[in-house]
Amino acid sequence: MGDFNQSVVLEAIRQSGEGLSRIELASATGLSAQTVTNITRRLLDDGFIREAGRTINGPGKPRVTLRLVPDSRFAVGVHLDPAIMTFVLLDLSGAVVHRKSIRTPAKEPRWIISAMAATIDALIAEADVDRDRIAGVGVAAPGPLDAEKGTVIDPPKLRGWHRVRLRAVLAEATGLPVLLEKDTTAAASGELWTRRASADDSFVFIYLGTGIGAALAREGEVVPGSTRNIGEVGHVIVDPDGPRCTCGSRGCVEVVCTPQAIVEQAERAGVFQDDREASDVESVDERFGELCERAGRGDVAALAVLRQAAVHMSVLTAALANMLDVDRVVFGGPFWSRLAEVYLSEIPGRLDRASATRAVRTLPVDGTVVGDDVGAVGAGCVVLDSVLSPRASGLLLDG
Amino acid sequence: MGDFNQSVVLEAIRQSGEGLSRIELASATGLSAQTVTNITRRLLDDGFIREAGRTINGPGKPRVTLRLVPDSRFAVGVHLDPAIMTFVLLDLSGAVVHRKSIRTPAKEPRWIISAMAATIDALIAEADVDRDRIAGVGVAAPGPLDAEKGTVIDPPKLRGWHRVRLRAVLAEATGLPVLLEKDTTAAASGELWTRRASADDSFVFIYLGTGIGAALAREGEVVPGSTRNIGEVGHVIVDPDGPRCTCGSRGCVEVVCTPQAIVEQAERAGVFQDDREASDVESVDERFGELCERAGRGDVAALAVLRQAAVHMSVLTAALANMLDVDRVVFGGPFWSRLAEVYLSEIPGRLDRASATRAVRTLPVDGTVVGDDVGAVGAGCVVLDSVLSPRASGLLLDG
Repeated sequence: MGDFNQSVVLEAIRQSGEGLSRIELASATGLSAQTVTNITRRLLDDGFIREAGRTINGPGKPRVTLRLVPDSRFAVGVHLDPAIMTFVLLDLSGAVVHRKSIRTPAKEPRWIISAMAATIDALIAEADVDRDRIAGVGVAAPGPLDAEKGTVIDPPKLRGWHRVRLRAVLAEATGLPVLLEKDTTAAASGELWTRRASADDSFVFIYLGTGIGAALAREGEVVPGSTRNIGEVGHVIVDPDGPRCTCGSRGCVEVVCTPQAIVEQAERAGVFQDDREASDVESVDERFGELCERAGRGDVAALAVLRQAAVHMSVLTAALANMLDVDRVVFGGPFWSRLAEVYLSEIPGRLDRASATRAVRTLPVDGTVVGDDVGAVGAGCVVLDSVLSPRASGLLLDG
Repeated sequence: MGDFNQSVVLEAIRQSGEGLSRIELASATGLSAQTVTNITRRLLDDGFIREAGRTINGPGKPRVTLRLVPDSRFAVGVHLDPAIMTFVLLDLSGAVVHRKSIRTPAKEPRWIISAMAATIDALIAEADVDRDRIAGVGVAAPGPLDAEKGTVIDPPKLRGWHRVRLRAVLAEATGLPVLLEKDTTAAASGELWTRRASADDSFVFIYLGTGIGAALAREGEVVPGSTRNIGEVGHVIVDPDGPRCTCGSRGCVEVVCTPQAIVEQAERAGVFQDDREASDVESVDERFGELCERAGRGDVAALAVLRQAAVHMSVLTAALANMLDVDRVVFGGPFWSRLAEVYLSEIPGRLDRASATRAVRTLPVDGTVVGDDVGAVGAGCVVLDSVLSPRASGLLLDG
């Protein structure tokens, strides 16, 4: 239990912000005074925490406040998206100390991994952080993944990525331990880490990227699934009148709710002046931005397309909420901020009407508190989790 | 931790079957010899276990084998199904020592609860078990439930059950502690309790009753959901060409996969001689039996209907497996045994092709090991869980 207790103590100090005394720690964690003394001595020796002043509180010895040392350890978080790669450097408190992003090169996987390694080096150099203090690199990638082998298996949105040994190749290229996580699950980790308020927080995270995925947190912990591939919801049927899908069915999330599908609906509805058809990730992203901008300016046709997209998304949302019985729904991912206004006006009411538990409670629907970089931040948080909580450290592959 | 350790020791003795010595218990549980001695003394005093012979194993003191006393405690399990109520009496080992079933009276809820209480009395009397040894009554009921209040909220298949205080009324009528659980979740408990082999067992349980529901077990424990209403999957769309549903959509599980829906499909396909239409639960059950029997005799039209039903069920199965990322799929519930042959020949192959993780593993599909009474047995197991594991005992409401 020693390692577990150490993570509990460190987490309590982290969450306190202002720091805690040993007596306060014993009371907050339920551990004995002796155990707290032993653990905090180790944490002081390792430089994770420092003594930050003394408080005199009545008679007796003054209490020493123990505070996190945010720059004692750092983590790199990388989000591999088919269109863009985002890189963040987090300190031990979870704060973003530096950020970069580059277009994902339209090249073979090995070129992309080279660019990733070079950008990680630049990120660390620009932040002027000692490389010895980097606990590791977390990479959030589209699923499905082979978590044991650390490979990306044929993700539908990443062409040419067939069983790529992303974890091993990046660890080799950077000399840093690397951890691979599904983008959706990483995002839920980022949400939980940033908002971590109560131990019983249970939510489904709906991730709006080039593809649509879900993640699950229960009782304050991310549930990764048996093979770390939870939340593959691309073929849930949301529109019986929708277009054919490659899976043989009709109206799947994949062909109805993705940015590409929404752009196609807008093209068919005559929202755009010319009749070009967006197909590559770059032009889809551009057209999607244009669509959302027009809707924001009150363009009726554009708004109708986004409202219809919200109706379809509410079908997926209700299916997930009713299946999973969680306390709230959180949206996020790179396309979320542009959809937030329309989705937050349409989805909550529809979800409430479709909720199997509406007689017992209402289900809040929110956007992530982390913002557009939630995938990258989340990947970094998974690394910080492995520092704070030794249970997860088996995930790291040494470089 | 005392109560938790006690449940660990009792569970180890239960699983061993042949019994364990104190030294074997210490080694199996990781607890100290002194802790094991203290706990087993309490369990002996309470009559849960007994000393069953001594083994001489080399020099030193002979080892005393400790064995479960199955008839030290009993649990009643009740399954409230719209068509039939099933009652089982389980001993502490989980074995069914007595069983009864009655047609669910087509009357108001209070009549049904009276009949339930009377049958529980008869069950206990016929088994000739001392009432003091009954730990409680578990009732498996169709969801959604208000677990806090112990009420059944408008389950679609139980007419007139609007916020019925089932738990309190039955506790009053029987004078026994009563626990209320969703039928699907109870079934998963029964499966886990009976098959309990490994601590990392993760499965989705698909429950085929008058309605269709799901339950989830992860790492050897049932996941009940935030409001104990996990697995409401009735409005997952499985057939874009399916009939309209009351929810406003089309092709939901509710109007495609339920026994009533399958019987209607058979009626439309001309499987039956006359053109009666089954509507009440009783005639649906009868016609469903006839349909399955004909299919079993090789009737082409009947078989085609069941195969089509399996195709639709495979859509739900794939949606759940891909969302939940579990290790296997288990089917059960009162209609399962009649569908098993066709479903087990059609669903595994389709699930494999639709599985997001097919590159990593294949997903076994099985029927429950518990049989048709899985709801009632599961409800009893939830009570036994609350005896063995004090964490769950807050669920019991004293009579």
